[in-house]
Amino acid sequence: MPITEQVPLTGQAVSIAERYGDPDATLEVSNDSLAIQLAHRSVRAFTDDAVDDARVHAIVAAAQSAPTSSNLQPWSVIAVRDAGRRARLADLANHQQFIVEAPLFLVWIADLDRVRRLAARAGKPLDGADYLETTLIGIIDTSLAAQNAVVAAESLGLGTVFVGALRNRPREVAAELNLPPHTVAVFGLAVGTPDPAERAGIKPRLPQSAVLHHEQYDAEGADRDLAGYDESLSRYNRAHGLTGDWSSRVLARLANADALHGRDRLRDHLEYLGLSAR
Amino acid sequence: MPITEQVPLTGQAVSIAERYGDPDATLEVSNDSLAIQLAHRSVRAFTDDAVDDARVHAIVAAAQSAPTSSNLQPWSVIAVRDAGRRARLADLANHQQFIVEAPLFLVWIADLDRVRRLAARAGKPLDGADYLETTLIGIIDTSLAAQNAVVAAESLGLGTVFVGALRNRPREVAAELNLPPHTVAVFGLAVGTPDPAERAGIKPRLPQSAVLHHEQYDAEGADRDLAGYDESLSRYNRAHGLTGDWSSRVLARLANADALHGRDRLRDHLEYLGLSAR
Repeated sequence: MPITEQVPLTGQAVSIAERYGDPDATLEVSNDSLAIQLAHRSVRAFTDDAVDDARVHAIVAAAQSAPTSSNLQPWSVIAVRDAGRRARLADLANHQQFIVEAPLFLVWIADLDRVRRLAARAGKPLDGADYLETTLIGIIDTSLAAQNAVVAAESLGLGTVFVGALRNRPREVAAELNLPPHTVAVFGLAVGTPDPAERAGIKPRLPQSAVLHHEQYDAEGADRDLAGYDESLSRYNRAHGLTGDWSSRVLARLANADALHGRDRLRDHLEYLGLSAR
Repeated sequence: MPITEQVPLTGQAVSIAERYGDPDATLEVSNDSLAIQLAHRSVRAFTDDAVDDARVHAIVAAAQSAPTSSNLQPWSVIAVRDAGRRARLADLANHQQFIVEAPLFLVWIADLDRVRRLAARAGKPLDGADYLETTLIGIIDTSLAAQNAVVAAESLGLGTVFVGALRNRPREVAAELNLPPHTVAVFGLAVGTPDPAERAGIKPRLPQSAVLHHEQYDAEGADRDLAGYDESLSRYNRAHGLTGDWSSRVLARLANADALHGRDRLRDHLEYLGLSAR
């Protein structure tokens, strides 16, 4: 490994305070790797710099190093650099302009076709793949791999953002990417060098008390500090040209099927693509 | 952050060679954070050392720093330390002994109940939560968070292993953890200090040519090097007291519903738990 590089790390203490929207938040342990994770933000504005093959290989090696159920490795990733294809995928994903601007768009595929091809060549049954459970293993393992890719990209100074809107029109996405049956594009990941002019920060998350339970689920304890979080996120949104608090935005996002932009038909799409939902 | 610590990093060049079961494998870029990811292995034997609260808070902060769709944060994590509860969960998860041995068992919950409670208090509709898509968002975001937790734990010198078998009997797991409706335990994560006596290595993954496609999916190119991978994994398995190559183990794992240990009924379980699969 002749070249060794890592994004310069500054302001670790700042990250945890921003992460919880609380100037007094601290951690008693830390290290450079944790600092990269804590400083995560979605990047939606990129410079023109290409993402070279060396970085792509490192990112994919990190993705492959994530755990996978029974070593099935039921995923693939398609590196899309072609500008025309990125523009067409952007059109299929609610016209999100940053897909056109990012030099690299990684499409993460839950891939049960590799094992189907294996079984076909061997003349063996693969009835265990006919259940929602196996589809979910594909989606879970794709997600674990993709998150490792995010951390790896950030460690190399790159910025990323996931694109769940790729599930709006899965059949057209499959056609554009020449996907075989038994596969589905779970989400995209735009990757590139962050544009320093982008107005964005580390978005505060729920207090730990809301997500971390001890021994058993405690709904009352989890909800106790939500009002404070609404205030904190409201402040963050105002500072970044957005409106609303957490509760109002979440309730709007899930109010009805219209807000799903076609994803209310995902089960039909999965069955059409040959991925079982039974 | 008074204490700064990080697992000592050695043998980065070794990791990438082991990762691909290929002594000539190299990466042109690397850094300490990538090295932690590349060196991942599942740990199933632990010392008696406890995982203290400082580490749990750092691990959960890293998990919360992962991306989440529309900032919904639709997950919770339950830290189980009680020995009796760990033993009962082990019984529900195919009697895997390491759940009893690990000092900490994190159960990762796709949690759509927090937003349901929010909607109920506000008297607002939440019809968008009635679709498989929203259940999948819960499962995907839980997976992204949990993978960040794995990397954070490893950066702190801890070892982990995911337990998908927690989906064998989701209703009993929900009862044990007092889960509300609209939640499901997606998987467990055993966490502890690795027992140095454990006989385990870095398991070789598929060659990058099998998972990384350019512009469009290429089945022929993806399958070209599978025979070599079968040889590589067969060597690894023999060296670690296991038998078989990748193809034979994958085909056995997915041959029929029996190998799913009850997970062929997952869709019914999800509906029972109040998570839509439509």
